[in-house]
Amino acid sequence: MGLLPCKNNMSEKRTEISDLGEFGLIDHLNEKVIIKNSSSLKGIGDDAAVIEAGDHVKVVSTDLLMEGVHFDLSYAPLPHLGFKAVAVNVSDIAAMNAIPKQITVSIALSNRFSLEAVEALYEGIYAACDHYGVDLIGGDTTASRSGLAISITAIGEAKKEQVSYRSGAKENDILCVTGDLGAALVGLQILEREKQVFLANPDMKPDLEKYTVVTGRQLRPDARMDIVHELGELGVVPTSMMDISDGLASEIFHICKASGVGATIYEDKLPIDKQTFDTAVELNLDPITCVLNGGEDYELLFTIDQKDFKKLEKHPDIHFIGHITKEAEGKYLVTKSGTAVQIKAQGWKHF
Amino acid sequence: MGLLPCKNNMSEKRTEISDLGEFGLIDHLNEKVIIKNSSSLKGIGDDAAVIEAGDHVKVVSTDLLMEGVHFDLSYAPLPHLGFKAVAVNVSDIAAMNAIPKQITVSIALSNRFSLEAVEALYEGIYAACDHYGVDLIGGDTTASRSGLAISITAIGEAKKEQVSYRSGAKENDILCVTGDLGAALVGLQILEREKQVFLANPDMKPDLEKYTVVTGRQLRPDARMDIVHELGELGVVPTSMMDISDGLASEIFHICKASGVGATIYEDKLPIDKQTFDTAVELNLDPITCVLNGGEDYELLFTIDQKDFKKLEKHPDIHFIGHITKEAEGKYLVTKSGTAVQIKAQGWKHF
Repeated sequence: MGLLPCKNNMSEKRTEISDLGEFGLIDHLNEKVIIKNSSSLKGIGDDAAVIEAGDHVKVVSTDLLMEGVHFDLSYAPLPHLGFKAVAVNVSDIAAMNAIPKQITVSIALSNRFSLEAVEALYEGIYAACDHYGVDLIGGDTTASRSGLAISITAIGEAKKEQVSYRSGAKENDILCVTGDLGAALVGLQILEREKQVFLANPDMKPDLEKYTVVTGRQLRPDARMDIVHELGELGVVPTSMMDISDGLASEIFHICKASGVGATIYEDKLPIDKQTFDTAVELNLDPITCVLNGGEDYELLFTIDQKDFKKLEKHPDIHFIGHITKEAEGKYLVTKSGTAVQIKAQGWKHF
Repeated sequence: MGLLPCKNNMSEKRTEISDLGEFGLIDHLNEKVIIKNSSSLKGIGDDAAVIEAGDHVKVVSTDLLMEGVHFDLSYAPLPHLGFKAVAVNVSDIAAMNAIPKQITVSIALSNRFSLEAVEALYEGIYAACDHYGVDLIGGDTTASRSGLAISITAIGEAKKEQVSYRSGAKENDILCVTGDLGAALVGLQILEREKQVFLANPDMKPDLEKYTVVTGRQLRPDARMDIVHELGELGVVPTSMMDISDGLASEIFHICKASGVGATIYEDKLPIDKQTFDTAVELNLDPITCVLNGGEDYELLFTIDQKDFKKLEKHPDIHFIGHITKEAEGKYLVTKSGTAVQIKAQGWKHF
């Protein structure tokens, strides 16, 4: 960088991105953003942006997935990767309480990729389009000098008054999560372990049969559109919502910051699958740490007004893990033994 | 690719992507796309997709730019690169006769990039947002194991009846182009030449002063939103339109194919800047070939009904290069000597 005639690509001062971290960098860049158009209802700072669209709103979310950072093609089957790339964007639309309708898919391919490999990737993309009822309406296909890059933008629809932002949680609201947590992180550890075993001895057959729940969650997660549809049918609009991509603790921090509130959650209410628990123990990981800090589960974290509790009380896949408090009360986990421990945010670190 | 447990990433059969080319690959993948939602008015196959939005439509375009394929940081200053990345997407919105309103920007950064470098890139992105009146409403920031990747999605607005598709050209319509052509290609050749000179002898100072038009077009093109606004003021809706990103000949093929028509253009009507012409000659390139096949000028190619000719006749930056014929009449360039030569499409080849 910074050869001829472009000296200014190499400035005198050099601050490492890792000094700021992903969220620090985003905050820093966004300070300078000015919204000029009245149709831009919500810009950066939520799971998706919100744009005026006549009688409704469009919600827009985008993700850029890079080989070697977000996926490892030595264990991620291409159809699963294609499905996951769509699912993680649909999950952001779900997190706004909106219905996904369209996606664009851009891919950059090195010459390592054959047509058959691209077809395998798109097999998963088409399967996800079918599963979520979204249309593939555009994209870009280009060469890459290095690894595979996949960039997807998802566009959804909602009535304006039904959009759930991160900022709407209020004192005494109930904190809910869907499904179970920690599986994707534990699955990743298993896949990495088996990869190392294989690299050390290629004749060794990896034993993955007993880990299908956790590896499946890592390789082919499902966005919780079922929950969004059910909330709609029950007439419940979450007061705040986001998807769990960086880990429960990190997401609770986001909601508390955006809403200006605190939160208390209870260890004995946190949902963990038996296979996730057993595998975490096998790997010498603390299962509760996996639940709190494991990313990529793509479950939904949301808050509801107490008046809506009855409507969801018997739902088999929604768990009531705590409640919203005043901001000054902070963010606490009450352990099984009754001790209140301050929650620390420890999301995914890419840098 | 195709290590454990993921054997299916490496299929038995291997067809090279280069056997199909970019357009062949896109066509192949799109055969399987099914549009399910009535709000998806136009999917793949134009400069941008079109989505229903109450009283108007949204147009959506996306591009993925990869270091080493789309840009070379040894001569592309980062602020210019940021501006260009936005401009090329805005150009796709312009090509639909729509007004850009929002963009999302995703970047993948290797640890080679300092905070100061990212700031320089965003300086250009913000300048473009300002210049085109668009809001930066979202994106993704992540690490890259290799080069820089930039993915931008632009969203614009238009009245439904004012959208110009590639498919609307009809016999006797007049073919128009804005500005002048070939400059970006010639500029790229100059930058590549000076880079080689510099690599051979780093003490050599590159002499770029006399090439500012052509290098400027390559490094920091401007989307022709001025033309879109003027067409609106004059009450002219082009019967078809696209932007010239792959080269005039290639774009004429796209419009003819989508509209089911032929076209005749005239060599003496093709606009070329004096510096482009002179530099092409200096580089031993045929100037007309640069005009026909040079990519990345980001001018607009459009067709108008003859009734609208009077409204545009005196416009200083719109050139009437030919007319639309019956499909059976083919695609021809009439040279200065009066010979009709068949046009060959020769767009950018990334693969």
